[in-house]
Amino acid sequence: MEQKKRTTIVLFSGDYDKAMAAYIIANGAAAYDHEVTIFHTFWGLNALRKEANIPVKKGFLEKMFGGMMPRGADKMGLSKMNFGGFGPKMIKKVMKKHNAMPLPDLIELAQEQDVKLVACTMTMDLLGLQKEELLEEIEYAGVAAYLGDAEDGNVNLFI
Amino acid sequence: MEQKKRTTIVLFSGDYDKAMAAYIIANGAAAYDHEVTIFHTFWGLNALRKEANIPVKKGFLEKMFGGMMPRGADKMGLSKMNFGGFGPKMIKKVMKKHNAMPLPDLIELAQEQDVKLVACTMTMDLLGLQKEELLEEIEYAGVAAYLGDAEDGNVNLFI
Amino acid sequence: MEQKKRTTIVLFSGDYDKAMAAYIIANGAAAYDHEVTIFHTFWGLNALRKEANIPVKKGFLEKMFGGMMPRGADKMGLSKMNFGGFGPKMIKKVMKKHNAMPLPDLIELAQEQDVKLVACTMTMDLLGLQKEELLEEIEYAGVAAYLGDAEDGNVNLFI
Repeated sequence: MEQKKRTTIVLFSGDYDKAMAAYIIANGAAAYDHEVTIFHTFWGLNALRKEANIPVKKGFLEKMFGGMMPRGADKMGLSKMNFGGFGPKMIKKVMKKHNAMPLPDLIELAQEQDVKLVACTMTMDLLGLQKEELLEEIEYAGVAAYLGDAEDGNVNLFI
Repeated sequence: MEQKKRTTIVLFSGDYDKAMAAYIIANGAAAYDHEVTIFHTFWGLNALRKEANIPVKKGFLEKMFGGMMPRGADKMGLSKMNFGGFGPKMIKKVMKKHNAMPLPDLIELAQEQDVKLVACTMTMDLLGLQKEELLEEIEYAGVAAYLGDAEDGNVNLFI
Repeated sequence: MEQKKRTTIVLFSGDYDKAMAAYIIANGAAAYDHEVTIFHTFWGLNALRKEANIPVKKGFLEKMFGGMMPRGADKMGLSKMNFGGFGPKMIKKVMKKHNAMPLPDLIELAQEQDVKLVACTMTMDLLGLQKEELLEEIEYAGVAAYLGDAEDGNVNLFI
């Protein structure tokens, strides 16, 4: 039996456009029957945040980080031409016109296609993010688990 | 017969310095007889734009994007120390002094070395870029073609 | 005898958080017995700068670059929420609280674990950085050496 191909993506970036690229590649790879993992670390964790403000106990610094970072994929900015939030509005408008999937839908599709979505526990600690604040049905792991997936991978990307 | 090694680069970034890194690695790999693909997506498409203002019919949003994005490699900014365009001038000056190839020459060299330059059709749509505005002799494809090249690759990078 | 797995990282970015991610992955891979190389190019070279101001002879442009770029890992900014240097202070505070290693310690650990730290000679030239200004016991090489390491790699990342 042939082994399945494997795509492993580190999503470090908290930009809407970069996360879109990550999820489009992930969904494509899943459609081609790869085993796909997206390992969310640092600002990439924001793509996994729930939109709602979940009340959890936090220290002062963690509260500050949590307050300044976008709550969920739909709130993220662009890596270029953000123009204080005007850029994302423009891009979402053209995406709608061209029937391109917005990021929250791409994430949902990835979950339906069994793309493994992992949140990096070490950076969750640093940024003060708690499990209650993140989407359901994601996994929690550290760099060792990432390397386990990546070292046998065909496509490894850091985005 | 041994199979050729393969290097596949996603150029997402529209920064002069990052595009330089992508093209230097691509040209190096081609010189070592790899099959090399650079898949240009999102802001990375700007590296493939012609300098001239090509008159094409566009919608309003597409015109805005087109007007705000740099026309061609030489117009791109730096990812760090851009200083409103002063940074790129400085770096081009030191590059000239050290006989380093400017980005447009690196792109030309890549084409001479048969590096496959691909423009992502999905993001061309989003940003309203049309074939007439991009360099000659490039290919047009989507994420499926990218994955086909990447999954058998030795070196896969997202830049 | 089984061949050792290999992880090769291009560190292009000069951001504290991205360099942290690079060094955490590198140290993890080394702990799992990979042969690990970090190839520092462009702004990533700043992670290898000594903190002290080393007096070397430079041209005018090189002096300007040298003066504007951070001297060493501890001086680097964040890719997001830098807030003129306030962000890095915050993140270092939470790192200390959570017993996470600061970047200079991660670099030291990498050297102890025989991670090969390489400085890209071509971009050293461009940015006017000289060997005297960089850490001891690093290697100097170009894109050919990078490709030699990367083409047999299991995990290749561009950060």
